[in-house]
Amino acid sequence: MRRALAEAAAAAQAGEVPVGAAVVLGGAIVAAAANAPRALSDPTAHAEIRAIRMAAEALGCDRLEDCDLFVTLEPCAMCAGAIAHARIARLYYGAADPKGGAVEHGPRFFTQPTCHHRPEVYGGIGEAEAGALLRGFFRERR
Amino acid sequence: MRRALAEAAAAAQAGEVPVGAAVVLGGAIVAAAANAPRALSDPTAHAEIRAIRMAAEALGCDRLEDCDLFVTLEPCAMCAGAIAHARIARLYYGAADPKGGAVEHGPRFFTQPTCHHRPEVYGGIGEAEAGALLRGFFRERR
Repeated sequence: MRRALAEAAAAAQAGEVPVGAAVVLGGAIVAAAANAPRALSDPTAHAEIRAIRMAAEALGCDRLEDCDLFVTLEPCAMCAGAIAHARIARLYYGAADPKGGAVEHGPRFFTQPTCHHRPEVYGGIGEAEAGALLRGFFRERR
Repeated sequence: MRRALAEAAAAAQAGEVPVGAAVVLGGAIVAAAANAPRALSDPTAHAEIRAIRMAAEALGCDRLEDCDLFVTLEPCAMCAGAIAHARIARLYYGAADPKGGAVEHGPRFFTQPTCHHRPEVYGGIGEAEAGALLRGFFRERR
């Protein structure tokens, strides 16, 4: 999660909403990414999507069955769906997102009967630092 | 939708689940793509995600506010989330997907209070051909 938090801090520096993610396999970081939809002109370029795509490319497979995903914010529906498609084993996330989250809020995607894979889910990991980054970012922009 | 159906047929030829998508702006096709998670080693490479990413890159913006999306199958949660993030104006889809769809099934994402943008939605467009492609694909593989 330290690496995901560093990616989130880098996103803030770049003027993007500060969210970062890392994919880990067997204790090693396979891929890490910052949220970057504006810089990349890509509405799908959330940190989770970017890290999952990079990890899948690095491992040469569209399934990341033994991988864990660390992300500083509760995933949205798009990212929760991608986590299920990638068959991520364990999801660790930082701050909860009542406005856009899809794990413990809104669609609670992993509890839906149409969700084909449910990772183990651990929320609140590094929550204080992840939340402080987000609050600082939005405070500066008000 | 004809272009999306052609992309779906190409996906089947490539051994991928036959789904195709196209992004249209002002009556012109900006981007079109086939489902290709296996070929690209990318669990996020659904037709919708690919077409949205291509269109955003072509238009140089992470929002596709005046664009419509045509896709041969009801979008999943990942793709519905991406459609909302991209601010797609109108969504036209073919076959319904009771097992993995997230528009009229499962999370019904666009009806969630955490969904920040709801496109106009039109289902059943080109449904017969879209469904026939999918049924033919899975029949061959049984």
